[in-house]
Amino acid sequence: MILIRAALPALLLILSTSVGAQAPSASPPDPRDTDPVKLGWMIGSPPPADKLIRASDGSSYRFPQWRWSFSHWRELVPTVEVSRGPLPVNLLTRDDRKDLDDVTFVPMGGGKPMTWADSLVANYTDGIVVLHRGRIVYERYFGALKAEGHHIAFSVTKSFFGTIAATLIAEGKLDANARVDRYIPELKDSGFGDATVAQVLDMTTALAFVESYTGDSPSMNAYRAATGFDARATPEQAGPGSIYEFLPTIKKQGAHGTEFHYRTPNSDVVGWLIARVTKKSPVEVLSERVWTKLGAEKDAFLQVDTNGTALVGSSLNARLRDLARFGEMMRLGGRYNGQEIVPKAVIDEITHGGNRDAFVFGNYPTLSGWSYKDQWWVSHDDHGVYMARGIHGQAIYVDPAAEMVIARFASHPLAGNVNLDPLSLPAYRAIAERLMAQ
Amino acid sequence: MILIRAALPALLLILSTSVGAQAPSASPPDPRDTDPVKLGWMIGSPPPADKLIRASDGSSYRFPQWRWSFSHWRELVPTVEVSRGPLPVNLLTRDDRKDLDDVTFVPMGGGKPMTWADSLVANYTDGIVVLHRGRIVYERYFGALKAEGHHIAFSVTKSFFGTIAATLIAEGKLDANARVDRYIPELKDSGFGDATVAQVLDMTTALAFVESYTGDSPSMNAYRAATGFDARATPEQAGPGSIYEFLPTIKKQGAHGTEFHYRTPNSDVVGWLIARVTKKSPVEVLSERVWTKLGAEKDAFLQVDTNGTALVGSSLNARLRDLARFGEMMRLGGRYNGQEIVPKAVIDEITHGGNRDAFVFGNYPTLSGWSYKDQWWVSHDDHGVYMARGIHGQAIYVDPAAEMVIARFASHPLAGNVNLDPLSLPAYRAIAERLMAQ
Repeated sequence: MILIRAALPALLLILSTSVGAQAPSASPPDPRDTDPVKLGWMIGSPPPADKLIRASDGSSYRFPQWRWSFSHWRELVPTVEVSRGPLPVNLLTRDDRKDLDDVTFVPMGGGKPMTWADSLVANYTDGIVVLHRGRIVYERYFGALKAEGHHIAFSVTKSFFGTIAATLIAEGKLDANARVDRYIPELKDSGFGDATVAQVLDMTTALAFVESYTGDSPSMNAYRAATGFDARATPEQAGPGSIYEFLPTIKKQGAHGTEFHYRTPNSDVVGWLIARVTKKSPVEVLSERVWTKLGAEKDAFLQVDTNGTALVGSSLNARLRDLARFGEMMRLGGRYNGQEIVPKAVIDEITHGGNRDAFVFGNYPTLSGWSYKDQWWVSHDDHGVYMARGIHGQAIYVDPAAEMVIARFASHPLAGNVNLDPLSLPAYRAIAERLMAQ
Repeated sequence: MILIRAALPALLLILSTSVGAQAPSASPPDPRDTDPVKLGWMIGSPPPADKLIRASDGSSYRFPQWRWSFSHWRELVPTVEVSRGPLPVNLLTRDDRKDLDDVTFVPMGGGKPMTWADSLVANYTDGIVVLHRGRIVYERYFGALKAEGHHIAFSVTKSFFGTIAATLIAEGKLDANARVDRYIPELKDSGFGDATVAQVLDMTTALAFVESYTGDSPSMNAYRAATGFDARATPEQAGPGSIYEFLPTIKKQGAHGTEFHYRTPNSDVVGWLIARVTKKSPVEVLSERVWTKLGAEKDAFLQVDTNGTALVGSSLNARLRDLARFGEMMRLGGRYNGQEIVPKAVIDEITHGGNRDAFVFGNYPTLSGWSYKDQWWVSHDDHGVYMARGIHGQAIYVDPAAEMVIARFASHPLAGNVNLDPLSLPAYRAIAERLMAQ
């Protein structure tokens, strides 16, 4: 909480030096110098050896290579399609607001005012779209991403499946207060066994698992090897070889229900619960309940582990405008494209937010006063803002008061959004205020 | 040539015992007993251990597992999209011919007459569509494949890229008579170096490479490990680790231009040539020149190797109807969906066929009198039939005289189409004659 009152440069320096192996240097490079097209990554037949990006040697998840990888994920790993089905595209009308580039804001923690346009570059943005009252008022793509391309959404994925699980609860198909092991006996002796479905959805489970993106958490490293996100050193590498083999190994540590700690395996359990009560894969359910109904432009996809289980906590890849459509559906209370996609009561539950006292334990210096509910981040601010958030700057930002939805893809050198929030959150607020002022 | 005159059961027995490691037993099982849905492959969360299919342990390319794998290829390996673009689908009208199921034919080599419907089961068909004068007169899907699904087309892929290369030649962008090393200096000291572009397209290169799908060819095994089609035992496994590292290792053996020998690396060189003269990946070119113009229903995709190079000889995955659209475009002389997609002269060159004397060296007992041109198989029969053919029964069959195109996906237990032709080729001819008789 003290950090965000410090000057921004000092904040960035502290954060960037604290992330260890993934930090490219003590301070991030000029984003313009890491443009993947300018750097020539993966261009040529074959690309030169020093311009190759591979999953097998880990270079695909290394900066600045991931400025290319995040827009080419299916070329690196096995994936499963989220079908949009045969229905027509729900076209978004366009009403470009050329004045937005010059909107200025003061970064969180102080510092010099910055323009919206400059903030996009500074935050390693790959694509951004702003909807106002459902119309596109701003849309830009950078580097390796085009409007027609897919980009990995990382933990923005969680909010899609959290919304589906909450809908299943509203329909009486899943009991929020039931123990997880009622649905998934395989988790009986794990830390998840005696947690409730609601605690898993709100990440107030007490687990011996440390979420860290810098290689310093053995539990996280074992998890990423199990999911296939990190290449295994050898096929025989010790440890669980799939998501559903890994989850039962997580032990309980503490008491459920009192502290929010952000741990992606909770989201895998959400996916597993969806599978058990629907008798379908979570990806099929995402297609049937969401992607085919949004009028999405394009099929999406998720990465799968060696057993074909999708990484429902981290691996949705989609067109940016389809993320915006999902955000707009949420903003409109669940009715979109001529039908109810999510019950209004579910949207109300999410926007009402989670336990703010529990959230404090999550230690998010840039999210003072927020909470976490059904895999969504809820601000409790005067605009009623809530977000889906993914590492390296992926976001869906819903501002009900401003009738605004922002979707963003990015490839920031640092994983934690704490590194981007000082620029992005005030920038989004400034855009909202400009749109409200018109 | 003697074989095809033998009784069919004996033929099948000889062929199935000759394929070694990949043969499931001395005689193929009843196809109905290998239905992947009935067998429960990859069903459940997670699937039971004995119902798992994985690329990493080789089970995805094992019978009967591949009856599932061939319809789920992207869930097993990295892939790259072939975009259909934003234009409307070229809808195929439907005029179901219920009489076709009862059409009978005598299998090649004799034996009891068989119905068309029975032949589909006996040939492990996953999907089949028959177009007559451009309209769907017959369409069926079996096992793990649905109309909306993708299936691997194996070497049918070659005919797409062969047609593109022939088009580049017609446009003067690629010289059929130039040496390969003029475009690809990396191949100067390989068997391809002094071959002409046309010889590569027609597979009359003389190479120390034996195409075999049964594990008994060291050159083929090294090739498949390089492409990533077969999982490598360890990341450090000896041998080239990518397609473009492997191709230069193939030595010359004999004289180019006189003998046809079916060797997939020729097709990889075709792809490399396309890349060099267009400065784009062959997959981008396939999208721009074909997939966006056919009015395809669906994006397609190809598998990529560790360097991101697509397997242009074997890995197109598509909807079956889109294969039929491509065949129909060929049948119509290159004009389709309101535009010229391939110059008429290119279609004429392909349908005129290749060197029949050279073809004899290929030793295809079921294809007497055929030839190979620009990566297509040409029958020189009285109907002017030509085909795209892929292992395990993938096919596009164009019968100009009958104004008929058949596209088929299958998952036969044996790789070589020699095992399917005795049933499929007479069956296609019988359907053609029925359609002509109406």
